[in-house]
Amino acid sequence: MPTTIADTARQDLENAAGNREVYDPSSPVAHFGADEPLLLDAGRALSPFQIAYNTYGTLNEAKSNAVLVCHALTGDHYAASQSPVTGKPGWWSSIIGPGKPIDTDRFFVICSNVIGGCMGSTGPASIDPATGEPYGLDLPVITIRDMVRAQAMLVERLGIDTLFAVIGGSMGGMQVLQWTVSYPDKVFAALPIATGARHSSQNIAFHEVGRQAVMADPDWHGGRYFAVGKRPRKGLAVARMAAHVTYLSEMALHRKFGRNLQDRETLGFGFDADFQIESYLRHQGMTFVDRFDANSYLYMTRAMDYFDIAGDFGGRLANAFLGAKTRFCLVSFSSDWLFPTEENRAVVHALNAAAASVSFVEIETDRGHDAFLLEEPHFFAAIDGFVSSAARARGL
Amino acid sequence: MPTTIADTARQDLENAAGNREVYDPSSPVAHFGADEPLLLDAGRALSPFQIAYNTYGTLNEAKSNAVLVCHALTGDHYAASQSPVTGKPGWWSSIIGPGKPIDTDRFFVICSNVIGGCMGSTGPASIDPATGEPYGLDLPVITIRDMVRAQAMLVERLGIDTLFAVIGGSMGGMQVLQWTVSYPDKVFAALPIATGARHSSQNIAFHEVGRQAVMADPDWHGGRYFAVGKRPRKGLAVARMAAHVTYLSEMALHRKFGRNLQDRETLGFGFDADFQIESYLRHQGMTFVDRFDANSYLYMTRAMDYFDIAGDFGGRLANAFLGAKTRFCLVSFSSDWLFPTEENRAVVHALNAAAASVSFVEIETDRGHDAFLLEEPHFFAAIDGFVSSAARARGL
Repeated sequence: MPTTIADTARQDLENAAGNREVYDPSSPVAHFGADEPLLLDAGRALSPFQIAYNTYGTLNEAKSNAVLVCHALTGDHYAASQSPVTGKPGWWSSIIGPGKPIDTDRFFVICSNVIGGCMGSTGPASIDPATGEPYGLDLPVITIRDMVRAQAMLVERLGIDTLFAVIGGSMGGMQVLQWTVSYPDKVFAALPIATGARHSSQNIAFHEVGRQAVMADPDWHGGRYFAVGKRPRKGLAVARMAAHVTYLSEMALHRKFGRNLQDRETLGFGFDADFQIESYLRHQGMTFVDRFDANSYLYMTRAMDYFDIAGDFGGRLANAFLGAKTRFCLVSFSSDWLFPTEENRAVVHALNAAAASVSFVEIETDRGHDAFLLEEPHFFAAIDGFVSSAARARGL
Repeated sequence: MPTTIADTARQDLENAAGNREVYDPSSPVAHFGADEPLLLDAGRALSPFQIAYNTYGTLNEAKSNAVLVCHALTGDHYAASQSPVTGKPGWWSSIIGPGKPIDTDRFFVICSNVIGGCMGSTGPASIDPATGEPYGLDLPVITIRDMVRAQAMLVERLGIDTLFAVIGGSMGGMQVLQWTVSYPDKVFAALPIATGARHSSQNIAFHEVGRQAVMADPDWHGGRYFAVGKRPRKGLAVARMAAHVTYLSEMALHRKFGRNLQDRETLGFGFDADFQIESYLRHQGMTFVDRFDANSYLYMTRAMDYFDIAGDFGGRLANAFLGAKTRFCLVSFSSDWLFPTEENRAVVHALNAAAASVSFVEIETDRGHDAFLLEEPHFFAAIDGFVSSAARARGL
C-alpha cells in the first residue's frame, strides 16, 4: 500500500504500465552502466539499461550447456516459472524442465525479457535518466538485432562464451535467426520455431491495425499516458483482439467455438456478445491490458515489422548464413497462417544454399500459430530428438 | 450552405452519418407507410421505412427481364452509376452495362440500398418517428432475411412478380441465397458469389474486432454521436483497416506492397507509416469514414454474423433448398480466405443433395475476397455464360 508521494507516483506508473514488474522485477536483473551502453540500430545508445532474466538448471564447469530461450511478442522471461503478474505457469513450462525436451537436469536455461519490453528490462515505461520521466516514445525504436545485442551482453555477463542452443518461436524465432547471423560462432545449435526471415506485408498490416487502435485511444496521449495516470486500455484491448485472431486457425476456431452462443438459447438481437467467440476475444483483450504496457506493444510490433535478414545482405538470404557452423532445426505448423510453412521453408532453402546443417519438420495441427505454445507431442519429440543429438555432438 | 437552424441540424446529422445521401438520397426512393410495415426477425416492425434504389435498362412488357443486384457490407445501390458521395464509377460497372455480362440492353437491373444501410434506405441514422431523433441503436438488429424481405416489397412495388436473376457477392451473396430460400418461386436464376450459407467463427471474430474498435471510440457515445455532433472516426477507421486486410490475400499484398517503403529510402525508426502497406491501410480507413455511418457498420456486420441458413432448417442446409426450381451458379475465388472455396462448395453440395440445378466455378486469382469487385475475365465469362444460358431458358 502506498504511503508516500513517491510511492503513490510509482503506483500510478505501475498501473499505467500494466504491471509492477516494470519497476520492481521479482527476477534477477543485470544492470549495464554508462561504460556499457547498448548501441542501437536507430543510431543511438541506450545507457544505462537493464535486463531482467531467469535461469533454470545449473551451468556446468565447462560452461558449455547454456540454452538461451527467446520469448515472443507479448511473452516474458518467466518461460519455466510462475508469472508474478498472472500467477500462471511459465509459458513454455511444457518444454523446459527436468526430463522435458529442454531438460533442466542437463542444461542451464536462460530467458531474458527483451529490450523494449515491460517486464523489467529497459523499455518505454522505464525512467529516462535525461528527464526523470518514463521514456514513452522517446525511447528509440528497438530492432530484433538490438534485442539480440542486449542478450549477448547478458550472456557475456553470465560468463558464457558460447551458447549450446538458442530457441524461440515467432518473434523469439526471429531472435534465434538473428543470433546465428550476428554471432555465428557463439551458437552451437539453433531452433527457430514458427517464424520467418522477414515480416510479411500481411503481418505488417495486422500490426499496423493494432498500433492504430492503441494510438486512436485518447487515453494514449501521444504515448505520455503515465503523466496523466491513464492507460489506453480500450485501444490496447482491440489491438490484442485483432492479433489474437491471427494466432489461431479457422479450423481451430470452428472446432472450439463454431457459431455456439454464449449463455443463451437464441440470438440476442443486440450488440452484446452473442457468440462464444465474441466473449472469448473480449476476455483476451481485457486480460491482456492488465499485464502489458501499451507503448511496449508498439515497440514489439515495430521490431517484428522491421525484421528482414535478407535486407541486410543485399536481398539474398543465403548470404546471411554463408559459412554457418551452427546446426539448425526449424519447425513450422501446418495451420499457422501468420508464419506459414513457406516462410519457414524459405529459411531452410537459404540455409541449404549456404551449405549449412539444417533439419526441418512441419507439424500437422489445426491449432494455428499458437501451436508453438501448446501441448504438441510431435513438436516436443522433434525438439527432444534434435537437442539430444546436438548435445551428443557437443559432448554433453 | 445551411441557412436555417433546421438546415444546420440536418448538416450536423449528415456530417455525423458520413454522407448526405442518408437524409437526401439523389436516387429514387420507395416509401412504405404505416399500412406496409417491414416485419423484422427481431420481432418488431419497422414503419414507416424507405428504400433507396437505382435501376438500369428497361423492364420488358412481360416484366420477365428483371435482375436484382445485392450489394456487400459497405456497398450501396450505385452498382452501375457514379457514386454521389465518392464520385467514383459504380462498384460493379465492369459487370453491369450495355454489352456487359449483365447486359442492360437486355435486362432491367435493380439495385437497392439495404435496410440498416446509410445511403438512403432506413437505417440507424434515419429519424425514429417515435422520438424525432436518429434511431442509433434503437433500430432493431437487422438480418439478411429482413434485408431480403424489404427488397421483395420493393420488387413488388415495381410491379415485378418474378425476378429473372438475383446476383451479389459476399454479403450480397448471402442475400441471393436468402432470396432462393425465402421466395423460391420468385427467382429464376441465382448467382451467389464469394459467399457462404453462414458466417464462420473466424469471420465473426474479425467483425467483433471492428465493432469493438468503433464502440471503444469515446466519440461513439453509445451510438448517440449525432446528438453531440461527433463521429467515431478513429474507431471506424481502425475497424475498416482490420476488415480491409481480410479482403486481400497474402499473395496480393506481397505482390502489391511487399516490404516496400513509403516515400523514403531507409526505415524511419518511428511510428509513422514506414511501409507502403501502412500508408495504404491508413488511407483506406480515413476515406471510409467520409462515406459510411459508424452505426450502420455495426448493423451490417451483425447481419452477416447472424446469417446461418442451415440454422433455420434444423442444421441441415440441403433442407433449405428442397424442391428448388431456381438455377444456381456459384463462383468462388481461389485466394479468398474470408469466404474460401470450401464455404461456397458447401452450398453446392447442399444444392446437389436437394437435387437443384447448380453450376460452380472456382476462379484462379491471387486477389483474395476483393476479386469479386475487380476485373477478372474468367469470372466475367462465367457470369456471361450462365446468364445467357438462363436467359435462353427463360425465353428472353
